[in-house]
Amino acid sequence: MKALIYNGPRDVRIKDVPDPRLERPTDALVRITSTNICGSDLHMYEGRTNVEKGKVLGHENLGQVVEVGDAVDCVKVGDWVCLPFNIACGFCRNCERGLTGFCLTVNPGSAGGAYGYAEMGPYQGGQAEYLRVPYADFNCLVLPPDAQEKEADYVMLADIFPTGWHATELAGVRPGESVVVYGAGPVGLLAAYSATIRGAAKVIVVDRHPDRLALAEKIGAIPVDDTKGSPVEQVLELTGGEGADRGCECVGWQAHDPHGHEHPNMTMNNLVRSVRATGGIGVVGVFVPQDPKGPDKLGKHGQIAFDFGRYFQKGLQMASGQCNVKAYNRQLGSLIHAGKAKPSFIVSHHLPLHDAPDAYRHFDAREEGWTKVILRPAA
Amino acid sequence: MKALIYNGPRDVRIKDVPDPRLERPTDALVRITSTNICGSDLHMYEGRTNVEKGKVLGHENLGQVVEVGDAVDCVKVGDWVCLPFNIACGFCRNCERGLTGFCLTVNPGSAGGAYGYAEMGPYQGGQAEYLRVPYADFNCLVLPPDAQEKEADYVMLADIFPTGWHATELAGVRPGESVVVYGAGPVGLLAAYSATIRGAAKVIVVDRHPDRLALAEKIGAIPVDDTKGSPVEQVLELTGGEGADRGCECVGWQAHDPHGHEHPNMTMNNLVRSVRATGGIGVVGVFVPQDPKGPDKLGKHGQIAFDFGRYFQKGLQMASGQCNVKAYNRQLGSLIHAGKAKPSFIVSHHLPLHDAPDAYRHFDAREEGWTKVILRPAA
Amino acid sequence: MKALIYNGPRDVRIKDVPDPRLERPTDALVRITSTNICGSDLHMYEGRTNVEKGKVLGHENLGQVVEVGDAVDCVKVGDWVCLPFNIACGFCRNCERGLTGFCLTVNPGSAGGAYGYAEMGPYQGGQAEYLRVPYADFNCLVLPPDAQEKEADYVMLADIFPTGWHATELAGVRPGESVVVYGAGPVGLLAAYSATIRGAAKVIVVDRHPDRLALAEKIGAIPVDDTKGSPVEQVLELTGGEGADRGCECVGWQAHDPHGHEHPNMTMNNLVRSVRATGGIGVVGVFVPQDPKGPDKLGKHGQIAFDFGRYFQKGLQMASGQCNVKAYNRQLGSLIHAGKAKPSFIVSHHLPLHDAPDAYRHFDAREEGWTKVILRPAA
Amino acid sequence: MKALIYNGPRDVRIKDVPDPRLERPTDALVRITSTNICGSDLHMYEGRTNVEKGKVLGHENLGQVVEVGDAVDCVKVGDWVCLPFNIACGFCRNCERGLTGFCLTVNPGSAGGAYGYAEMGPYQGGQAEYLRVPYADFNCLVLPPDAQEKEADYVMLADIFPTGWHATELAGVRPGESVVVYGAGPVGLLAAYSATIRGAAKVIVVDRHPDRLALAEKIGAIPVDDTKGSPVEQVLELTGGEGADRGCECVGWQAHDPHGHEHPNMTMNNLVRSVRATGGIGVVGVFVPQDPKGPDKLGKHGQIAFDFGRYFQKGLQMASGQCNVKAYNRQLGSLIHAGKAKPSFIVSHHLPLHDAPDAYRHFDAREEGWTKVILRPAA
Repeated sequence: MKALIYNGPRDVRIKDVPDPRLERPTDALVRITSTNICGSDLHMYEGRTNVEKGKVLGHENLGQVVEVGDAVDCVKVGDWVCLPFNIACGFCRNCERGLTGFCLTVNPGSAGGAYGYAEMGPYQGGQAEYLRVPYADFNCLVLPPDAQEKEADYVMLADIFPTGWHATELAGVRPGESVVVYGAGPVGLLAAYSATIRGAAKVIVVDRHPDRLALAEKIGAIPVDDTKGSPVEQVLELTGGEGADRGCECVGWQAHDPHGHEHPNMTMNNLVRSVRATGGIGVVGVFVPQDPKGPDKLGKHGQIAFDFGRYFQKGLQMASGQCNVKAYNRQLGSLIHAGKAKPSFIVSHHLPLHDAPDAYRHFDAREEGWTKVILRPAA
Repeated sequence: MKALIYNGPRDVRIKDVPDPRLERPTDALVRITSTNICGSDLHMYEGRTNVEKGKVLGHENLGQVVEVGDAVDCVKVGDWVCLPFNIACGFCRNCERGLTGFCLTVNPGSAGGAYGYAEMGPYQGGQAEYLRVPYADFNCLVLPPDAQEKEADYVMLADIFPTGWHATELAGVRPGESVVVYGAGPVGLLAAYSATIRGAAKVIVVDRHPDRLALAEKIGAIPVDDTKGSPVEQVLELTGGEGADRGCECVGWQAHDPHGHEHPNMTMNNLVRSVRATGGIGVVGVFVPQDPKGPDKLGKHGQIAFDFGRYFQKGLQMASGQCNVKAYNRQLGSLIHAGKAKPSFIVSHHLPLHDAPDAYRHFDAREEGWTKVILRPAA
Repeated sequence: MKALIYNGPRDVRIKDVPDPRLERPTDALVRITSTNICGSDLHMYEGRTNVEKGKVLGHENLGQVVEVGDAVDCVKVGDWVCLPFNIACGFCRNCERGLTGFCLTVNPGSAGGAYGYAEMGPYQGGQAEYLRVPYADFNCLVLPPDAQEKEADYVMLADIFPTGWHATELAGVRPGESVVVYGAGPVGLLAAYSATIRGAAKVIVVDRHPDRLALAEKIGAIPVDDTKGSPVEQVLELTGGEGADRGCECVGWQAHDPHGHEHPNMTMNNLVRSVRATGGIGVVGVFVPQDPKGPDKLGKHGQIAFDFGRYFQKGLQMASGQCNVKAYNRQLGSLIHAGKAKPSFIVSHHLPLHDAPDAYRHFDAREEGWTKVILRPAA
Repeated sequence: MKALIYNGPRDVRIKDVPDPRLERPTDALVRITSTNICGSDLHMYEGRTNVEKGKVLGHENLGQVVEVGDAVDCVKVGDWVCLPFNIACGFCRNCERGLTGFCLTVNPGSAGGAYGYAEMGPYQGGQAEYLRVPYADFNCLVLPPDAQEKEADYVMLADIFPTGWHATELAGVRPGESVVVYGAGPVGLLAAYSATIRGAAKVIVVDRHPDRLALAEKIGAIPVDDTKGSPVEQVLELTGGEGADRGCECVGWQAHDPHGHEHPNMTMNNLVRSVRATGGIGVVGVFVPQDPKGPDKLGKHGQIAFDFGRYFQKGLQMASGQCNVKAYNRQLGSLIHAGKAKPSFIVSHHLPLHDAPDAYRHFDAREEGWTKVILRPAA
């Protein structure tokens, strides 16, 4: 089959690779009709991870089941399914509590596995015609009859809609509250969208790209441009001097200031100042334990100079980490099905698989208008 | 009346000061029979705060009501009461949600007030014969008939028993879990004690003072001596290599390594390594936004070099801040009343008020055996 | 001043009564500009309670502060305030946990007080030019500058918007879920509205009055007319045969079937059948411990023939009771202020106080189009 | 193999039946060394269910794995395992939220399956030498090395320890609260024990059997004998007239008064009166939707005459249903392993399988001293 493989820094290619096949009786095979390029794919693309050459990328996948193993009981050939990016067993100590992003079974020695990702187990990705799905009964979200009609919405359930939602959950957003989101990439926009769906009274989004800020405004959020003045001051002004009730980190360790300098602690310390005393912060932007190419000595060791005194004095709370997609995908899918959520508003491009290398290049350059790409391998 | 006042660094004195009187119709006056010296009093004693000369210290107070204002409805003269260290109005946006440690009324411009404390409002402390209690109906916990019999237990409800409990609450301790507590001072010991009351399966306490570790063992915790090897390694070994489910920070920014060097980030980074992926951390040890006399450049600005990459990768949660005493004091008082909690196990000394200056000196020197002092001003 | 007083069954009158005055230093006096007639006022109007003759009715009140007692610290003369229908002290065992509907202070011997209501303490109501507000700092929600502009929205914060919200809170509604509401009176409609604001995927409202069902549809809910067939069957059909995730009881003990017969257990047993196994039910419709005029022997003793076997088998949860208005009024007020909630959509009439007796008559007859009346005594 | 089968009302026999075998690749076979007789087995024994003749009974099972299917990944031959009484798939809509007592897969058309039980699917029980365990990775709790040493404790994890705990969870028990438990059978005793472990300040147990009340007292609860006066009055007296904070129903629909008359609504209405306003009730005693042999007309239809008016007026909460064993068994197992819980205190008899028919007879007669029987089929 055709698949997009990693061939080295800034070098991804479409190649013929062997078709995946059932390896365990609990597996299913899925023909992939939609698979997104994720911002986190760019970490691998840029060569800042140790992903192996030849790996098929792609962890935001949707398609139709074409074969199931003997031990698969409920998922059936022909079902349209969306696959959480995290691969999980369903029965380990973490999975049984819903912490499927930290499965102890699928990637022994670590906590959590994923398709087509560095250090997340031996699993190929879905930027390809077919994908093997382990523990299929647990890992397939079977979609309702409008699966194809709303495919661009449902594919967002694989990662970024739940991840945006997770940011608001980790922050503890409650109806009627004010929320500030740092970062208006796809995840930040969907965090802002999630906060709105949950009944936030005021949602503020900090970024500097005009196209992204325009999207934020379009979904009813208040855009804050951090090139126009201190984002903290702007947030305080918008919240009566007190700060927002909740804050979401959707940028990660590679945050840059408006002058292009990288500061791994920038968004976190801005959040500590932007959130009111007793508030909560949810962190879904990626931070890494080591970063040999990091901008400073602390960063190389995965540390940040964190305003912990102020954090403590304000009595803040902060929760973090990879999204447990299964904690949210069914409920968010219901909202899509009912017409109450339409996360595809972030999509800028639908492209065939063979355009993927080009799409990586544009997306990595953060070119104006390339907010989110859906590839259609077997559509 | 007689009171202990701050007279400068390491200089506290017993002086005659004017009796407090009712200032507002919602006030009560309390004759203080028990008032503790708190570890946080030592920050002022050592001159590391800007507390004003002449201030009466003491925020862990218990006594008998001798007078009430016209607007006090339920507290009566003669009632025995224990007073939360945080002074709170009961009606502001934070108080109405139970966040009484962050009252917006009692210390305008800041969030939270306290008796006899630097930067916590104009309130005198209770290391004195009498104390004025604002918003008496809200701030007095009226004690049951065994108030005097169990006075050494009930006075712990003013601060350190709830604060220890708060650490376990912030960490999210659930029955059957394992918990590691860094610091076996009074608060750390009561955090360990609280974890046990809440049904933790395994409680581990890290410290190095033999008397404190012995107390930890006495209440059923596993003592870990950090002079005998890496505390992180010891905790991992005690938890099957995974780390504890929950961790409590009960040391604060003035943490020292076994060689006597101060490292503001020491306990926090040890906790990130000692707690299992998906776990929770509660921080009640004090961290400050500025510390001009801090050991390093980061510390002077209230920052720590924090292992944030590892924190994120493990999907940890962390909550912090001053305890909202009223969130717990009634229920913990019920446990004392029912004979199911006896927090006075930490008390080493009962002393008259005039011995207070001596007691400060011994306690500040962390002399063997001086774990907790109760002063008895009007007993 | 002028006030509407109860003069006997179906007899309410506008009379001159003495002006209220400050009785305690914690009181405030409020000039009432908006005060609603509530469905629960009709229980008194119809003579099914033992409310005393001469009592001023009215517990949904909004106005401007004209005088405050010596002990009132934060509420100021001139403030526009909305008053929760439950009067609460703010400091008793229940209030300190936010259970202000069950205050142990304001109505000794019972739990909970209210303005102008049978068996809820000696407090006059607000269908009058002025109202005395006890514990003013605690019981006044101070409104933002758009108080007058959005007065018809803000006055809903006194009771029915929080009460509708409470139904969804008690039922445990989470985003993406389906919710069925029995009863499309003002509270039922605002429960449906609340469920939508909280992100429910599907909201179903059961009633039979065309004007109410039309309002339900207008806010995006699915109307179910129980004269057109079994409401349970209709709900099951709308939820794939499983039942709704959550259910709200907004009718109460005087439920009638389409043929006009009263069945106190009707809505509860319909809910047990309409909600899916593991679901939750919130009950805010009023049920009473005795009802001498009830339709059957069980009802007279406040009992219902309840499908408890089915309830247990399905593993249902059910929470009930009067709304603790202060638990929600601030956050819901933020939604009004931000333009994200407009609960005044239920209002059918704005009338001067002297029209109140007429309005009671129309409202009690449940005449078409009389969904909600706001009286404007001192507007 | 030998197994205890149901042969008709009050007729159970040890018979030779075919050995179970792996039927699905996700199955395991377990050699049963401990299997309890449960109070709910008596419903079948007494002929009040439609359980089929020839069914092997027994749903509280522990033993050693002797064979696993191809799709079983983590459970290994030789592992000692305790099996939750509810059989669950791990991946359906309910299981993924932890509601394993309401699995939608294992018993199609219903919610929830179990071993050897009426209307809970086609699964044989474990009062036999071997047991087939479906979805073995999900349904086996692998025990630590002290499995055999503490076998009498660990086998309680199959049902009654988690079920007793569930009662306290459903009731919402928090540390420092008072709890009343109706029923001192094995589940009621373990509910009281659970409340204590969770830090309840006061635990009250209502029953009338002296041996059971003695056990309640032994674990630190206050026994209330309902033959000595109204249990409600006794509970109110023990709780300052207010009622307990929380209540647990551990009797079920076959409740009898001290004179031997059956009243299905007795414990529930006693609980409504015994629990304080704003309190919570957890119901784990079994109630059934139909009971053709019930004592009255309501009961035959699974209804009770419930004090709903009082329930509403007090603002009570009530949650119910079969325990989701996997929600608690791991944490409770940790408490057993750590020596902090010893639920075997309720065991009165350890018997070989061939004594099972006799044991049923004694247990059904509720003979003094027969509190809990463990059978040892393959020990």
